[in-house]
Amino acid sequence: MGIFQRFARLPLKPLCIWSLCPQYSTAFTVGRGLIVRSSQLIQHRYVHSRGLGASPGNLGAAPPRLPFSRVTQEDLAFFKTLLPERTITDPDLLKSCNVDWLKTVEGNSEVLLRPKTTEEVSQILRYCNERNLAVCPQGGNTGLVGGSVPVFDEIILSTSLMNQVITFDNISGCVLENLSNYLEERDFIMPLDLGAKGSCHIGGNVSTNAGGLRLLRYGSLRGTVLGLEVVLADGRVLNCLATLRKDNTGYDLKQLFIGSEGTLGVITAVSILCPRKPRAVNVAFLGCSSFQQLLETFQCCRGMLGEILSAFEFLDASCMSLLKKHLKLTNPITESPFYIVIETAGSNAAHDEEKLHNFLEEVMSSSIALWSLRERITEALTHEGYTYKYDISLPVEKIYDLVQDMRGHLGGMAKNVVGYGHVGDGNLHLNITSPSKDPVLLAAIEPYVYEWTSEWKGSISAEHGLGLKKRNYIYYSKPSEAVALMGSIKAMLDPKGILNPYKTLPDHIH
Amino acid sequence: MGIFQRFARLPLKPLCIWSLCPQYSTAFTVGRGLIVRSSQLIQHRYVHSRGLGASPGNLGAAPPRLPFSRVTQEDLAFFKTLLPERTITDPDLLKSCNVDWLKTVEGNSEVLLRPKTTEEVSQILRYCNERNLAVCPQGGNTGLVGGSVPVFDEIILSTSLMNQVITFDNISGCVLENLSNYLEERDFIMPLDLGAKGSCHIGGNVSTNAGGLRLLRYGSLRGTVLGLEVVLADGRVLNCLATLRKDNTGYDLKQLFIGSEGTLGVITAVSILCPRKPRAVNVAFLGCSSFQQLLETFQCCRGMLGEILSAFEFLDASCMSLLKKHLKLTNPITESPFYIVIETAGSNAAHDEEKLHNFLEEVMSSSIALWSLRERITEALTHEGYTYKYDISLPVEKIYDLVQDMRGHLGGMAKNVVGYGHVGDGNLHLNITSPSKDPVLLAAIEPYVYEWTSEWKGSISAEHGLGLKKRNYIYYSKPSEAVALMGSIKAMLDPKGILNPYKTLPDHIH
Repeated sequence: MGIFQRFARLPLKPLCIWSLCPQYSTAFTVGRGLIVRSSQLIQHRYVHSRGLGASPGNLGAAPPRLPFSRVTQEDLAFFKTLLPERTITDPDLLKSCNVDWLKTVEGNSEVLLRPKTTEEVSQILRYCNERNLAVCPQGGNTGLVGGSVPVFDEIILSTSLMNQVITFDNISGCVLENLSNYLEERDFIMPLDLGAKGSCHIGGNVSTNAGGLRLLRYGSLRGTVLGLEVVLADGRVLNCLATLRKDNTGYDLKQLFIGSEGTLGVITAVSILCPRKPRAVNVAFLGCSSFQQLLETFQCCRGMLGEILSAFEFLDASCMSLLKKHLKLTNPITESPFYIVIETAGSNAAHDEEKLHNFLEEVMSSSIALWSLRERITEALTHEGYTYKYDISLPVEKIYDLVQDMRGHLGGMAKNVVGYGHVGDGNLHLNITSPSKDPVLLAAIEPYVYEWTSEWKGSISAEHGLGLKKRNYIYYSKPSEAVALMGSIKAMLDPKGILNPYKTLPDHIH
Repeated sequence: MGIFQRFARLPLKPLCIWSLCPQYSTAFTVGRGLIVRSSQLIQHRYVHSRGLGASPGNLGAAPPRLPFSRVTQEDLAFFKTLLPERTITDPDLLKSCNVDWLKTVEGNSEVLLRPKTTEEVSQILRYCNERNLAVCPQGGNTGLVGGSVPVFDEIILSTSLMNQVITFDNISGCVLENLSNYLEERDFIMPLDLGAKGSCHIGGNVSTNAGGLRLLRYGSLRGTVLGLEVVLADGRVLNCLATLRKDNTGYDLKQLFIGSEGTLGVITAVSILCPRKPRAVNVAFLGCSSFQQLLETFQCCRGMLGEILSAFEFLDASCMSLLKKHLKLTNPITESPFYIVIETAGSNAAHDEEKLHNFLEEVMSSSIALWSLRERITEALTHEGYTYKYDISLPVEKIYDLVQDMRGHLGGMAKNVVGYGHVGDGNLHLNITSPSKDPVLLAAIEPYVYEWTSEWKGSISAEHGLGLKKRNYIYYSKPSEAVALMGSIKAMLDPKGILNPYKTLPDHIH
């Protein structure tokens, strides 16, 4: 498992073809919404309601601690023998691993283990399973739903030292660990782009089935991950580390571990199919007068850009206001209710430019088309006070209705209700801001937002997972038969429930 | 679940750019290797070794019948009440459902049930589970490994009447049942192309994780299937029929049913993401002097054709001889040891033609490049007598070594040893012919072919599945921990083992 370093930007080759774009020269200097972790303030400490359990009004709160053993001096002695320099108990060093990236959830683990090999992970889990000690696997700790930090005193099992590239094969695929420049040098790229997230790990990406910006083009990790090595709760090593593009020999077990947020096993190695690095990357920024027009533009775009379309994202005017207000970013085009970011990636620069020209000529007749910057909305939102974040999948024509309905529903209670996201994937990031944490506002948002999503057969977590915060809302997106089956799978693979407890599955399975 | 009809051919727009192509005008009249089922002869009746079980020398033979109940008059009365016109017991009508497409495996089921609704499937399975009656789910019955026909007297549960398109949404995806023209009319296509197989069903495609010709471009069904509705062994209906491109709420249960060959549940509805119909499709046919040169051409092709490459397939000179001998097809280009079929599919005809021209100009300097026909190798092979068929995944640079090693290993024992397949997926179809079935030849091929594949960490079934014939060879591609876990999943979902018994999982789990 490897550190998935901040991904080197592909050389953007923007096209400037209309004079309506006065700030063009600065419009391309902004990265993909990179958020600097160290500059984040702790805005809110997640209240665990320890011992009380999640109340009906706050199903995301922590449940009571389950009766796991507590770490003893004998346990520490075992770990220190196994990992002499890599058993961390210094509270200062533990602090950053106990709190999540958004600084909203904090555990109080007293032990951080940093194995380097699969065998070490196996020995740790075998020991913890026998001793009934709970374990929280942690990659880059960049999750947004409280899945990557301990809730109570779970042992933190960090995979940060498991960062070797095992093999690279430029025909069949690559068994990867430390990527980024490694792949770039070989003229390949990763099929997912989470460059903005800075320090996420590929093992964590796979555990959470991370989406990101390239999904529209290369599909999800369920298609691009070719193989996994996983250590099960009792220490058994499951080697499904194939590098084959096709293999129909029995059930595809690796799929169980993709997106299960560390609750079924710890991923110790990944084999992934990497696409060729595109020769040409272009970015366009457009304004639209309505969401309906934005959808029509998307349809036109899919038809005319076809196979080179790699991203189609949107933001609304409220997002643009926040970018101006907090980050001093300039809107390079005429004020519009909606803005679109389109990226193309292809093998022939001249062809791609021509396709983009043709497309823009087509849509220029009906919308304000211009080139401009890429987005830093999430960063701007952090300056607003407290943000309630929702990651919703819906039929694409419904995604902005939710934002508008929510505005009407909340009225003056919210400071801002903004929408942005991946149009190509039907994935809305709905963000509602408030000067500070506000239980009355929260009660107005939830379960309203989940009920709305469920009514339109959407997903209450498109790409962020359920983690701690959303585990009890699973029934809004999955029928009880499905949740029951998930519970059976959990019980089969982790009978003592030591792996990432309190996450993903709800407190009570109907 | 729908009938996946013979897919209307996309309009091929071939380019003729070199005069070295004398038979060009006829070279494009051949379809994608369509095999007419009704013209197939029964070449061999698979010997089940009933009651004896698979012997070490023939692990693909049927095991002893398990102690399931036998169908009684009371059972028939129940089925006839539930499905008055759709409970078939006429031996003549049952015959074609008892024998596989290759005519190599034959069961003796006495009941064929043809439900029309999910509720009927649920009632059938609930009844069979209570009565301990074994069930063989059957779609189009086009499988190649004996997975789709009963081994003994299992009840055949045919999904052929479950062929309705439920919804079609040209933005988010489509919940589909009867496809083909339906999609073409709406300017979309299926992400998999099994047009050659004539009568396969989409439910069966998903159950077997069918690969096919478009996998290189659109990826496997694990990425394109958005949702499934499945009836479990005890009749419970599991509704995971989402139409969302992204959904990270809990474990992705649908993956358990994709590729599990009907042993974990019966798929009753499928939701699948369909790509836009490409505006331009081109096909090129090239000759190569060595497999090494073929691989170099593949690398060059991936770089220069990039995102429009939709297929890269190969055949060897032995295949070409069989096409000439049995089907009177003419080789339109100079005799070569290897031939390549390249297909491109894109949104801009002029761009695609230019890319293809550039690519061909590049490779023309080092290989004989020409346009020509598409292949009908499988059909030609059926004229050779008996064919031992293997569907192997390997690192792509190794795939032809297996053919050559096998030729040396078998010497004069085999009539022909031929190789063809999907280079882009590292997938070899190795076929060994003999005038008739030959146990001595078989003993020379197996387990040699499996050991060879295992040594290079390949898959002994890239896309055909394990079914009955290959179930006991699973350990060549999967470690025993993985097979044990598959057994646990089977026991969890189908505790009585009534669903498609004797298939996929080995007779003995270590």
